[in-house]
Amino acid sequence: MTNRLHAVDVDNAERPLFVGVDVGGTNTKIGLVDDAGRSLARTSIPTEEEKGPDDLVARTSSTIKQTLRELGLAQNEAVAIGLGTPGTMDIPAGMMLEPPNLPHWRNFPIRDRLSEASGRPVSFANDGNAAAFGEYWVGSGRAFPSIIMLTLGTGVGGGIIIGDLSIDGEHSHGSECGHIIIDYHDDARMCSCGQRGHIEAYASATALVKRAEEALAKKSGSALKKKIEAGDPITPLLIAQCAEQGDKLSLELVLDTAFYLGVGIVTLMHTVDPAAVILGGAMNFGGHESALGQQFLDRVREVVHERTFPVLAKHIVIDFASLGGDAGYIGAAGIARAAYHKAKRA
Amino acid sequence: MTNRLHAVDVDNAERPLFVGVDVGGTNTKIGLVDDAGRSLARTSIPTEEEKGPDDLVARTSSTIKQTLRELGLAQNEAVAIGLGTPGTMDIPAGMMLEPPNLPHWRNFPIRDRLSEASGRPVSFANDGNAAAFGEYWVGSGRAFPSIIMLTLGTGVGGGIIIGDLSIDGEHSHGSECGHIIIDYHDDARMCSCGQRGHIEAYASATALVKRAEEALAKKSGSALKKKIEAGDPITPLLIAQCAEQGDKLSLELVLDTAFYLGVGIVTLMHTVDPAAVILGGAMNFGGHESALGQQFLDRVREVVHERTFPVLAKHIVIDFASLGGDAGYIGAAGIARAAYHKAKRA
Repeated sequence: MTNRLHAVDVDNAERPLFVGVDVGGTNTKIGLVDDAGRSLARTSIPTEEEKGPDDLVARTSSTIKQTLRELGLAQNEAVAIGLGTPGTMDIPAGMMLEPPNLPHWRNFPIRDRLSEASGRPVSFANDGNAAAFGEYWVGSGRAFPSIIMLTLGTGVGGGIIIGDLSIDGEHSHGSECGHIIIDYHDDARMCSCGQRGHIEAYASATALVKRAEEALAKKSGSALKKKIEAGDPITPLLIAQCAEQGDKLSLELVLDTAFYLGVGIVTLMHTVDPAAVILGGAMNFGGHESALGQQFLDRVREVVHERTFPVLAKHIVIDFASLGGDAGYIGAAGIARAAYHKAKRA
Repeated sequence: MTNRLHAVDVDNAERPLFVGVDVGGTNTKIGLVDDAGRSLARTSIPTEEEKGPDDLVARTSSTIKQTLRELGLAQNEAVAIGLGTPGTMDIPAGMMLEPPNLPHWRNFPIRDRLSEASGRPVSFANDGNAAAFGEYWVGSGRAFPSIIMLTLGTGVGGGIIIGDLSIDGEHSHGSECGHIIIDYHDDARMCSCGQRGHIEAYASATALVKRAEEALAKKSGSALKKKIEAGDPITPLLIAQCAEQGDKLSLELVLDTAFYLGVGIVTLMHTVDPAAVILGGAMNFGGHESALGQQFLDRVREVVHERTFPVLAKHIVIDFASLGGDAGYIGAAGIARAAYHKAKRA
């Protein structure tokens, strides 16, 4: 089922067109994007991990065909595919290695398989860098020559783009910004990766819930505690709702998340010194649309301003992402587009 | 007084030649480097901060002339100059802004002034990135497509080079690796920059002395304590000597330095994922020539291996720098060379 986005219609789309594919643990997003970064259509298909990666490659390829057909486009109008997957991976080799979210997909040459199945060149990227490239190309980062994007969800993802260069690293572990250390002590919080002190262990949704549990075990008298005692499960959404309704403890938990993020952002700024830092992902507490989201963003900015050099405090732009769940496939398409135009120039 | 290096003699030098200038708080190094990165000659002149930057520009320019003359070279054989200075700075504008080591040199357009005085194009860089570029070009990093260099001295300097790209940042604060945060707590150690928790506040020479003072106030019975009580000032060299003579406390202080560095290196690896990490600067505890230096390096490697992802632990190369105090001017010359060849190709 193709979901028409109407960001641009087929007649007005700038040619050539590109396909972006964003493989996730549960769903895989496939979108058609024009040369100006506008989405013509997007589809989400279940990843169905248990059926194996060859099955997903086949379904992705037929979804691309079907999408072009549904839009009345010739198959050759989409000239290249960008593919983002979760790590671990070997980007130059086009391999997925041992993705924790897709435990049965090991050492799979997904780039070349998708290229064979679809008959198109495929550019391969880490999903975090693909999303960052999307925001850099046509999202909140579009006015800036370099950005760092942090994606806040179950974990903390990262992407670093410096002037069209995606920082993939020499071993496909560049931009793993969730795993920078903000506390070296032996008793620092444990990260999902098994190491201590990483920003993800403080500022992810998982970490927020953990901190809430600890706080509730110690404190009494909060609205959050009453909800939990009444049987509600602790979730970031419940914490946000309680914070919005004036619960002091819940607000503290949200603003502490912003504090830890701010600390991590300072480290990233002192390493890369980007023009902007973009916060994406579901855990944005409502983003600009919500007073809580704005309060969260303001606290991040405040912590960064307090802790960075004066010149950077003056110039750095910190904002929410604007493409939502579309960033990944749009960015993947953008990476394919950059490779396509570079090859044409050469 | 020009000091002939004899790394290559004038007849065998590859043309064209480049000049590298490395401005420091006390001395300014000026060297002549051939197209293959070999140093033909180097000179050190006092920076003489109090005389102002125009005076240094004039003396630098005449030193370049004199060096070429002494070597029997025509003035036009040196086609471009690379200039590294300590921050803060505005690299695209060619300005020194408020360098803490040169407090009276504010808002000085050093790039253009040196270019006017010498009649050559000048490439401008941060001194940390210049040194990193030197190691990347012809030093310990020469076999690698990307490196991070940490310079261990009074402070901790940094330089990040990714495939000929020096990470200067949007506001000339890229690669300020000494100022990444390894401890977010309010009681974290205070850095020279006035912020807390930075790696420089743990792993610099200043920090080592501070940690030694604290340890000596608490513990008794160490050889280091006896030396101090006999009137020796606490210095990294004294601590290293005591460690080499079997003093347990001193060795612990040295290896703790390695621990903090290892933590910071992990954060940098999870951001940039370079092929190699190079440790430069005077505080290398004797480097490869000394058992203590080797022990120090081994401990850095051990901490990194324990704390990074398996793929990175397997592949990362961590080693001492090899150019010593020449890295800065050689790297500056290398940056000028890269700009020269790029302009010729265009």
